[in-house]
Amino acid sequence: MSRLDDYIKLINNKLIDYLPGRNNLQKNVVEAMEYSLNGNGKRIRPLLVLEFCRACGGDINKALPFACAVEMVHTYSLIHDDLPCMDNDDFRRGKPSNHVVYGEAMALLAGDALLTRAFEIILSPETIKSVGANVVAEAAACLADNIGVYGMIGGQVIDMESENKSVSKDVLDSMHSLKTGALIVASAKIGCIIAGADKSKIEAATEYAKSIGVAFQIVDDILDVTSSTEKLGKQVRKDQQENKSTYVSIMGMEKSKKTVLDLTDKALSALLKFDSNENLLKDLAVSLASRDR
Amino acid sequence: MSRLDDYIKLINNKLIDYLPGRNNLQKNVVEAMEYSLNGNGKRIRPLLVLEFCRACGGDINKALPFACAVEMVHTYSLIHDDLPCMDNDDFRRGKPSNHVVYGEAMALLAGDALLTRAFEIILSPETIKSVGANVVAEAAACLADNIGVYGMIGGQVIDMESENKSVSKDVLDSMHSLKTGALIVASAKIGCIIAGADKSKIEAATEYAKSIGVAFQIVDDILDVTSSTEKLGKQVRKDQQENKSTYVSIMGMEKSKKTVLDLTDKALSALLKFDSNENLLKDLAVSLASRDR
Repeated sequence: MSRLDDYIKLINNKLIDYLPGRNNLQKNVVEAMEYSLNGNGKRIRPLLVLEFCRACGGDINKALPFACAVEMVHTYSLIHDDLPCMDNDDFRRGKPSNHVVYGEAMALLAGDALLTRAFEIILSPETIKSVGANVVAEAAACLADNIGVYGMIGGQVIDMESENKSVSKDVLDSMHSLKTGALIVASAKIGCIIAGADKSKIEAATEYAKSIGVAFQIVDDILDVTSSTEKLGKQVRKDQQENKSTYVSIMGMEKSKKTVLDLTDKALSALLKFDSNENLLKDLAVSLASRDR
Repeated sequence: MSRLDDYIKLINNKLIDYLPGRNNLQKNVVEAMEYSLNGNGKRIRPLLVLEFCRACGGDINKALPFACAVEMVHTYSLIHDDLPCMDNDDFRRGKPSNHVVYGEAMALLAGDALLTRAFEIILSPETIKSVGANVVAEAAACLADNIGVYGMIGGQVIDMESENKSVSKDVLDSMHSLKTGALIVASAKIGCIIAGADKSKIEAATEYAKSIGVAFQIVDDILDVTSSTEKLGKQVRKDQQENKSTYVSIMGMEKSKKTVLDLTDKALSALLKFDSNENLLKDLAVSLASRDR
């Protein structure tokens, strides 16, 4: 089994371990949290935490709570994003959205609970003991800063306010670098922080993560035009229907494809800062660029 | 001016200082956050942080970020609780609810952003420098543990699932001890933690906070029957209309009033553990019990 498969298995198991226990009175919210965590996610963010930690000479067991935390944050953002008052998506990761199954109120609370649980896990006495309070505080701050108003939520705000109007490439860049990019960058940085990496490595990891983050989004926009709902596990052609600006609508299909290749090259160059042969991170960048779902 | 007035002024000023800056692309969400923070709140939770810190010999300036964080968390919970898919309340703290003014999507994001901002503030390099990473981690963990599935959110879940059915006093106790009590307890404990208080003081603060938390809720249930929408700044008689179990419906009005007095006595006894003459905490317990709004 490859390291990638090992990681995915480790992450998937640990994500469920890290859920709160199922007390009778709260069992439904834990079930709703698990439902979305169990989706067929790519686990890109936790993979970045683990692999950048390893690439910087760190112990992935120390990085594991942070890996699960970033996936919980990502999952909370998807649940809230799918709600009727937001994107109103009934389908996610190939199955009905959280609110379709559990109702809007429970989905809202399951999202809130996942965000809160992420901080519970990384601030737990076990994590403090394993990683040290200073490192935990630095990594937790990196997470918080990247998912707030000038991070992920800020991106959601721009996205929401851009509905039904065409926006400039600058605004589109801002939106995606925050909405998707910030948590991807935080994941890579946190992996480095846990390993005690130096500034130059953190910068290289940031460069890599930024590049694959934008490339990922452009591929998303391309697939929204070229793929099918069945294949993607979420509704396609929504952008067009809603007159949303996308990389494809702004740059055209060819330029979009070319930009994905350029960004992937940039990501691969950033990996040169790391001594070891970073096949997993190379493969990840390449596979995200060439993915068909 | 009394210490209480000083504290309220300090908290109100600092809450606004601690908001993210108003970048052009995100200004609406910051405005929505500020709108609800600016409400005519009692600031009970931040007062507990500051005053228990002081009562344990700590420096309230060190406690200030935590005081603002608990109020931000409280405010996020109110915004989400008022949403149409939850309690569907159009009125809060004497003015239209967040979603009535900013729309549901923005209210959802403003709530998410306040929760996230709370962690950003307490995990910031400034707070770490002032308080130390170990203390920050302990206080932040205390916050996270008390607002998750076995804290505030868990209480919301019980509340939601108890709609349109009568519940036992045990379930009512569980619901309120989590929904309202957990964050009040966390606030008192965090004040002690920042001051480096010993276990016996943390336990006494917990006892005090638990008692005033339940008393607060019983008074809420009493006022829902005896007060008016104008006076409370939120809709009254909702519990009755929705057939919700309350302390008054379960214990009756007289027993409810008696229980408030007993709990207040219990809170005052707990204060004996603190050397100094804790007028502010005494006054707070008494005024919450005898409040008419």
